[in-house]
Amino acid sequence: MPPLRGPARRGPTCRGLDRGHGEGSGPHTIAGMTRGEPSGTDAGMPPELIRLRSSIDNIDAALVHLLAERFKATQQVGELKAAQGLPPADAAREERQIARLRALAHDAGLDPQFAEKFLNFIIAEVIRHHEAIAADSTD
Amino acid sequence: MPPLRGPARRGPTCRGLDRGHGEGSGPHTIAGMTRGEPSGTDAGMPPELIRLRSSIDNIDAALVHLLAERFKATQQVGELKAAQGLPPADAAREERQIARLRALAHDAGLDPQFAEKFLNFIIAEVIRHHEAIAADSTD
Repeated sequence: MPPLRGPARRGPTCRGLDRGHGEGSGPHTIAGMTRGEPSGTDAGMPPELIRLRSSIDNIDAALVHLLAERFKATQQVGELKAAQGLPPADAAREERQIARLRALAHDAGLDPQFAEKFLNFIIAEVIRHHEAIAADSTD
Repeated sequence: MPPLRGPARRGPTCRGLDRGHGEGSGPHTIAGMTRGEPSGTDAGMPPELIRLRSSIDNIDAALVHLLAERFKATQQVGELKAAQGLPPADAAREERQIARLRALAHDAGLDPQFAEKFLNFIIAEVIRHHEAIAADSTD
């Protein structure tokens, strides 16, 4: 059976998920640091803080990649809705999403109110995209 | 070798990641739907839209769980900072985080400006938590 992941399948977007330390700089160096070493200048900080920051950086890389994937999906939704003349926003769907995410957040120990604010933040951006797509398709 | 995941390890927080359809209602029913079926009332929608919404719901469940994990880490950071008298905010660290996430977003096809707005949104909440911890510890 072929391996699920191998070096040949690693593109540039995977770099942020690397532990990175000690790899030195490369084509991805930005302002003196690499994507994998945002906490590289935490010298003098308590080791526990450096460890936690490294975990936060890994989680943030995962969040960015998931958000990229989410907007790819909503981009397709926007195009589909525009093609079929469906309205960009769907209040009933949003209500169900909010109720579900609040419940998931509660189970995961995340403030449900924050989860709702977060979804509204994302949805506002999605609707902005959808309106742009709808405007393009009716021009 | 034991399986990495099995039914015995599935807790309630995993339910949102299930495909869920057809499982019926259970203890997690909220307003007539389960955590796994937020798009269950999409009847009459194009099948492609239902498929995309199901992917978006899976991504959202992953985002909520990652955010919960991120706040667990920043909660520890806040407690550590308060114990050691370090200030809640760290402008240099935030600047590095923003530069790194913008670069990761760019590689992943996500609007870097949105990634920055997103991080600022999260950091604002984190600082709110840290200030609350610092206030508690100095009372």
